[in-house]
Amino acid sequence: MTEISASDLTLEEKASLTSGADFWTTKAVDRAGIRGVMMTDGPHGLRKQSGGTDHLGLASSVPATCFPPAVGIGSSFDPEIIERVGAAIGVEAAIEDVAVVLGPGINIKRSPLCGRNFEYFSEDPIVSGILGAASVRGVQSQGVGTSLKHFAANNQEFDRMRASSDVDPRPLREIYLRGFERVVKDAAPWTVMCSYNKLNGVWTSEDPWLLTSVLRDDWGFDGLVVSDWGAVNDRVAGVAAGLDLEMPASGGRTDAQLVAAVRAGALDESVLDTAAARVVDLVRKAGERPAVAGPLDVDAHHALAREAAGRSIVLLKNDGALLPLAPAKKVAVIGAFATEPRFQGAGSSLINPTRVDAAFDELRAVGGDNVSHAAGYAVEGGAIAASGRSADELRTEAVAVAAAADVAVVFLGLPAAEESEGFDREHIDLPAVQLALLDAVLEANPRTVVVLSNGGVVALPFVDRVPAIVESWLLGQAGGSAVADVLYGAVNPSGKLTETVPVRLEDNPSFGNFPGEFGHVRYGEGLLVGYRWYDAKGLDVTFPFGHGLSYTTFGYGPATAQVDGAGDIVVRLDVTNTGDVDGREVVQVYVARTGSIVQRAPRELKAFASVPLAAGETRTVELVVRREDLAYWDVRVDSWIVEGGEYTVDVAASSRDIRSSASVQVDGDDVLLPLNLNSSIGDVVAHPVAGPIVMGALGGFLGELSGADSSAASMMPNDEAMEKMMASFPIGRLIGFPGVDVSHEQVEQLLAAANAGGAVAD
Amino acid sequence: MTEISASDLTLEEKASLTSGADFWTTKAVDRAGIRGVMMTDGPHGLRKQSGGTDHLGLASSVPATCFPPAVGIGSSFDPEIIERVGAAIGVEAAIEDVAVVLGPGINIKRSPLCGRNFEYFSEDPIVSGILGAASVRGVQSQGVGTSLKHFAANNQEFDRMRASSDVDPRPLREIYLRGFERVVKDAAPWTVMCSYNKLNGVWTSEDPWLLTSVLRDDWGFDGLVVSDWGAVNDRVAGVAAGLDLEMPASGGRTDAQLVAAVRAGALDESVLDTAAARVVDLVRKAGERPAVAGPLDVDAHHALAREAAGRSIVLLKNDGALLPLAPAKKVAVIGAFATEPRFQGAGSSLINPTRVDAAFDELRAVGGDNVSHAAGYAVEGGAIAASGRSADELRTEAVAVAAAADVAVVFLGLPAAEESEGFDREHIDLPAVQLALLDAVLEANPRTVVVLSNGGVVALPFVDRVPAIVESWLLGQAGGSAVADVLYGAVNPSGKLTETVPVRLEDNPSFGNFPGEFGHVRYGEGLLVGYRWYDAKGLDVTFPFGHGLSYTTFGYGPATAQVDGAGDIVVRLDVTNTGDVDGREVVQVYVARTGSIVQRAPRELKAFASVPLAAGETRTVELVVRREDLAYWDVRVDSWIVEGGEYTVDVAASSRDIRSSASVQVDGDDVLLPLNLNSSIGDVVAHPVAGPIVMGALGGFLGELSGADSSAASMMPNDEAMEKMMASFPIGRLIGFPGVDVSHEQVEQLLAAANAGGAVAD
Repeated sequence: MTEISASDLTLEEKASLTSGADFWTTKAVDRAGIRGVMMTDGPHGLRKQSGGTDHLGLASSVPATCFPPAVGIGSSFDPEIIERVGAAIGVEAAIEDVAVVLGPGINIKRSPLCGRNFEYFSEDPIVSGILGAASVRGVQSQGVGTSLKHFAANNQEFDRMRASSDVDPRPLREIYLRGFERVVKDAAPWTVMCSYNKLNGVWTSEDPWLLTSVLRDDWGFDGLVVSDWGAVNDRVAGVAAGLDLEMPASGGRTDAQLVAAVRAGALDESVLDTAAARVVDLVRKAGERPAVAGPLDVDAHHALAREAAGRSIVLLKNDGALLPLAPAKKVAVIGAFATEPRFQGAGSSLINPTRVDAAFDELRAVGGDNVSHAAGYAVEGGAIAASGRSADELRTEAVAVAAAADVAVVFLGLPAAEESEGFDREHIDLPAVQLALLDAVLEANPRTVVVLSNGGVVALPFVDRVPAIVESWLLGQAGGSAVADVLYGAVNPSGKLTETVPVRLEDNPSFGNFPGEFGHVRYGEGLLVGYRWYDAKGLDVTFPFGHGLSYTTFGYGPATAQVDGAGDIVVRLDVTNTGDVDGREVVQVYVARTGSIVQRAPRELKAFASVPLAAGETRTVELVVRREDLAYWDVRVDSWIVEGGEYTVDVAASSRDIRSSASVQVDGDDVLLPLNLNSSIGDVVAHPVAGPIVMGALGGFLGELSGADSSAASMMPNDEAMEKMMASFPIGRLIGFPGVDVSHEQVEQLLAAANAGGAVAD
Repeated sequence: MTEISASDLTLEEKASLTSGADFWTTKAVDRAGIRGVMMTDGPHGLRKQSGGTDHLGLASSVPATCFPPAVGIGSSFDPEIIERVGAAIGVEAAIEDVAVVLGPGINIKRSPLCGRNFEYFSEDPIVSGILGAASVRGVQSQGVGTSLKHFAANNQEFDRMRASSDVDPRPLREIYLRGFERVVKDAAPWTVMCSYNKLNGVWTSEDPWLLTSVLRDDWGFDGLVVSDWGAVNDRVAGVAAGLDLEMPASGGRTDAQLVAAVRAGALDESVLDTAAARVVDLVRKAGERPAVAGPLDVDAHHALAREAAGRSIVLLKNDGALLPLAPAKKVAVIGAFATEPRFQGAGSSLINPTRVDAAFDELRAVGGDNVSHAAGYAVEGGAIAASGRSADELRTEAVAVAAAADVAVVFLGLPAAEESEGFDREHIDLPAVQLALLDAVLEANPRTVVVLSNGGVVALPFVDRVPAIVESWLLGQAGGSAVADVLYGAVNPSGKLTETVPVRLEDNPSFGNFPGEFGHVRYGEGLLVGYRWYDAKGLDVTFPFGHGLSYTTFGYGPATAQVDGAGDIVVRLDVTNTGDVDGREVVQVYVARTGSIVQRAPRELKAFASVPLAAGETRTVELVVRREDLAYWDVRVDSWIVEGGEYTVDVAASSRDIRSSASVQVDGDDVLLPLNLNSSIGDVVAHPVAGPIVMGALGGFLGELSGADSSAASMMPNDEAMEKMMASFPIGRLIGFPGVDVSHEQVEQLLAAANAGGAVAD
C-alpha cells in the first residue's frame, strides 16, 4: 500500500472512511488502495465472530484462548506476565487477520457493583496505568493494535449510554484520567475508544476537551479515537471534537451528515481530513504486519493461560498453614463451580475458549481417589441444576462428604447472570444457598478452605470462621488447573488485591452516589476512591488493598529514598524470602505528604514490583516513584503541580502492612498567583511586597481590630480569633468600609505593583 | 410618612437608598421624608453597639437579654417557645428603635466543624424551617423586622467569603433551600440576607437565579434582600440579580457605580427603582411600629430566658435514674464552666447580657452546703486560669471533692476560642485536660453526671462509662439557673437532638468534602446529610437525631395516617405520660417511600410536636405532614414532584426509636417526559403508543437479541441479561445499526406521534 494523503480522496470517500462498513470492519476505498481492517472485542482474548461481520453478538465466535480477565491477571501486579499474555493475544489476532483488539479496559473500580469490573484492573490509577500499558505493549509487539477503553469516567453499567459522570477536576485528573494518561504516554496504543457516557454533561464521543485538549494536546496521543459501538450521538460534533472513527456502520447516514456539514461550512474540511488520515494511518499500520499463518498453538497458549491464572490467585487467609494440601490428605471438593467452572464474565469480552479446565478434574489428577466431590448447590444452566436435585439434598450430601474428609475445599462464587457488561450488581453478597452450604460444611469439618469465583469483590461474612480463603476471581480457561496448582502447592500464590474487600457495601465510598438517577451520577467521594477512602475514614475492611499471602514469608529490610537527577524518587530495600519454599512478593511503595496544602489520602500507591525470590534468597529491590506521580492537579492554575516539602515513603506488603518508611525532601513547582481584590487579607498581608504597604494603607482599621479589647462585649473571644476571621476577608470588600481610609483605586494600583514583582504561593 | 414612589426621587437618591449610611443604618433622603433605619445583629438577642454606628464590632453593645442561641432553643422542637422568645427580642429591639434584627440563621449543620453551628437550628430542613418561621413570627409580631440568613448554602466559615458551595439540584432544593422556602412562605420575613459565599460558582450576592427566580418567582418573597456585611462583590450585578440593599456603607463608591450603570444603559433604571422601592417599603414598615418606651423589664426577660434554656437542655443518658438530684444528697460540682459559664458563641451574635447565672450558684441556692465545688481545670480568660494553679493541682482537688460527695456533676465543654463565627473547628474533641479530669473523677466516684457546654456537637468517648449526661449546649444568660432547674428536677428535661452525635468525626457525611480548598467545597454527600447519612449507611452513632430523655416515660399508642382534602397526611395517635412526674414529649413523624424511583434517605422527618403531659395524662396528638414536604426535586422537569404510591409513616421518639408505623397511599403528580432519540429502548417499549410500533419497526433485531441462544459462545448469560443490557440503549443509537431496517426519520415521526398522545412517566 502506498502512502495516501487526504488530498487524494473525495469528500465522500473521506467521510466514508470515518465510519464502519459493518459491525467489525472499517470501510475500504478500493480506488485508492485503502483496505478495510477488522476490529474485534477483547481484552483477555479474541472474540471474533464466526458468523460474519454483520452481527453484534449473536453468533458464536471463533475459538480463542481465554486468558484471565483483568480482575484476575491484575492481581499479579506484574507487567511482565501481562505483556506476555498480550503478545499471545496479538498472535491469535494476527492469525485471524484482526487489526485491532478492543482493549485493554482500565476504568477505575469505583464501586464493587459495576457489572464490568471484571474487565478492569484496579481501584487505583497507577496500577491500572502500569498494567494497562503492559497489555498494550504486549499486543502491539505483534503488529496488532489495541484500543484503550473506555475513555473516560465510565465506571458503571447502569444507564451507561446516557448518564453523565459528574466529576470534579482533581478526582478526574488524579484518579479517573491518570491511568489513561500513563498508558498513552508509555505505550502509545494505536487507538483509544471513547465511552458511552457523558462526562460533566458532555458526551465523551463529542467532547473536544477530552478527545483533543487532554488526549492529544496534553498527552501527545497521535493515534485514532474510535467510538464505543453505538456511542456516537452527534456525528458532526464528534468529528469536530476529535472522534475519528464511528463504529459500527451507520448505513451511510452519518457519512452523509459529514459531507453536508462540510458543504454547509459547519465543519472545516481539514478536520475531516485529519480524521480520515488517522483511519488511513491505522490501515497502514495494520498492513505492515506480516501475515501470520495458523494454526494457533492451542497447547502453548493454554499453558500460558494456566501460568497467568496461577499468578492471578490471591491467598487471602491461611491460618495454621492449612494450605497447601498434601496429596495424601482426603480432600472433599464441594461446590458446583469445581465441576462447572465460572472463568469469565458476560458481554462483549466473552470468549469461546479452546478448552476449559475444571478444578475438580485437576485436583483429582493430583490427589487421585483422595479427592471426592459433592455438588453442594446448583448454578443456573449447569448440569447440577438440570439434575433437579433440591438444595437440601445437595447440602446433606456435601456435609457427608466433608465430614469424611481431612479437609473440605468449598468452591463458592457469583452466578454468571449477576456479573455482566450492560448492568450492575445490586449487592455484593454471595448467594444465600452457598452461604448456608458453607455454614453446614464448616459445622461438619472446620478444616475448610473456601475458593471464590467472582469478577467483582464479594462480602465475606464468614471470614473469621474459615481458616483459609483463596480468591480465584475469574481466571480464564485454565483457571481450574491453576487452582489445583495453588491448592497443592505446585504454584506458590503471589497475587495481591488490586481492590479493597470491604466489610459491607455501605462502607464503599460511592455508596449513596451510585449509580445516580435521571442521567447524572455524582462522584461525590472525590479523590477518596478505594483504599484512599477506607484509610481516610479509618474504616475496618475485610482485606485491604494490596493484601495477599504466600506459602513462604518475606522480610523487608530498611528502605532508603532519594531524589535522582530526573526528580524521581528512587526507593531501595532488601527483600528476603525468609521461608523454605520459593515464592514471589509484590512490594508496594506508598507516598504521603503530611501537612499538604491540598486534600490527600493518607497514603497513595506510587510504585510496585513483583519480585521472585527463591527460598532464603535476598534481593535488593529498586522502585522508582515518578516525579509526575507526586503531582496533584491544581485547580487554581489548571495544571499538575508537585508540592515541595517532605514526603513519607512507605514500603509495604499491603496498604495496611507498612514494613519500612523513609522521608525524602522534594523540590516543589512554583505556582504564580497574582493578587487581586478578591485576594484575602491574609494572602495580601503575607505578600512580601504588598503586605507592609497594605497594612499601612488600611490605617488604623486592621490594627484596631487585632488590638480590640477582649471584654465580654467584644465580638471575638481573643485577638487570635479576630485575626483568623479577618484573614480570609477579601481585601476588596474591606475597602470602603467606614473607618478604612483608602480607595479601591489605590489598592488596585498597589496590587498591580505587587504583581509586577510576582506573587509566589506554595 | 407619606407613600413615596420611585418617581419622586432622583437617580442619585434612588442609588443612595440601596446602600448603608454607616455600619448599621440605611441612608435617609430627608427631602422626601425617608428616614434611615437601623439594623442590628441578632439572632438570639440584640447586639446594638453603644459606641455609635460607624464601627464593626469593637465597641461594647447595649445590655440585652441573651436568650439561648439556636443550638439550644432548637432542641425544644417547639415553635411556641421560640415565638415567645422572638417576641421578647422584638420588644427589646423596639425599645432601642431597631428596625430589623439580623436573624434567624437557619443554615443546615452540614458538618459539626462549622464554627457558626451554634447560631443554626438543625441538620434537618423541616426543623430549621418550622423553628425559623416561629422566630420570624415572634420578632415581627412586635413590628420589628427580621433578616432570614444566610441565603444560601453557607455551611462553613472556612474561606466563607470566597468559597463556592458546589451543590447538586436535589440536595440544594431538598436540604439547603427547603427551610428557607418554608420560612419565606409561612412567615414572610421583612428581609432576607444573602450570604458571603458563592453557590455553584456564582456569588449569592449577585445570583439572579437565587435572589429572583427562586426567592421571589418561585417562593413569592416580596420583602427586601440585604447583603451580609461586606458580601457585595459587583454592586451593579447585585442589583440586577435582586440584591436591594448593600450593607454596610460603601462610602458612596457603589452608589456612583449604579448611577453610572443606569446612565450607560448597562442597568435598567426600573431595576434600581424596584430596589429603592423595597428600601422605602422597609422604612415604611419600620415607621408603622409605635414607639416603645423603656426601660426593658430585665427580670421578666431573664425569666423567659431561663424558661427557654430549661426547654433547650437535652438529657442524653440517665442510667439508674441518677437524675434528678435530691437536695439532700452531697453534690460535688466540678469544672470551670460551673462558675465561669459559657453561654453564647463568638462573633456578630455576641450579646452583652443583662446578667449571667452561674450553675454553681444556682445549684447551691437549692442544695445549700450539700453542694461543693472544685474548678477541675481552667478556661482561657477566666479567674481560675488567672489563679495560675496547675492542671494536676486542679485535678487532684477535684478528685478529692468528688470522692467526698454522693454524686459528682462535672461540667465539661468547649473553650470560647474554639467556637466562633469566622472560622471552623478542626476536630470535635473536648480538651484533653477535661477528659483526663473526667477519668480521674470517675475513678473516685462512678456516680458522675456530665453537663456539657458546647455550641457544636462533641465526641463523647466516655459515653459508656458515665451514667448520666446532660447536653446543655450554649443556653444564654440564664443557662446556669436552667441547668440547676433540670439537675434538681424543678424542670423535667424535654429537649431532643436536632443533630446527630456521631461516634467519630470521620463518620460525618461531609468528611473528605469539608471545608474544600482553593475556592470550592463539593457537597459530595448529596442528600445524605445528618441522620439521613447515618441511617442510609447503617452507621452506629453515639446519640441519634431526635434523641432525648425525660424524668418520666411516654407511651405511644397505634398511629393512623390519612390523606386529607388538601392532600396532606394527617397522623393521629395517643401519647401517654406513663410515669409519675409531669413532662413533655417531642413526638416525631418520619416518612419513607420504599421502592422510590429516586434516591431517598431511609426515613425523613416531616412533622413534630412538643406535647406537654401531666403525670398519667393521655392526649390525642395530631401531626400534619404537608403534601409539599413529600415532594422530591425532579431534575428532569426542574420541579417539585410528589411520587405516587405507598408511604410509610413512622411515629417516633427519635430517628432510631420508632414507636408506631402506618401506611398511606398518596396520589402522585404526573411527570410528562416526551420521547426522543435518546430515550432508552426500555422507555420506548414501555410506552403504550410507541412501544408496539417500535417493536414492530425494529423488525427482527430486538426479537433476535432476546431470543438469542444462551450457548457459551453467546455474549450474554441469558435472555434476561440481554434484555437488561438492551433496555437502556438509546433508541436513536440502534437505528442504522446493521440489521435494523428502519430509518431515523421513521422513528422520529413515530416518537412525535407518541408524544402527541403524551408520555406519562411515574
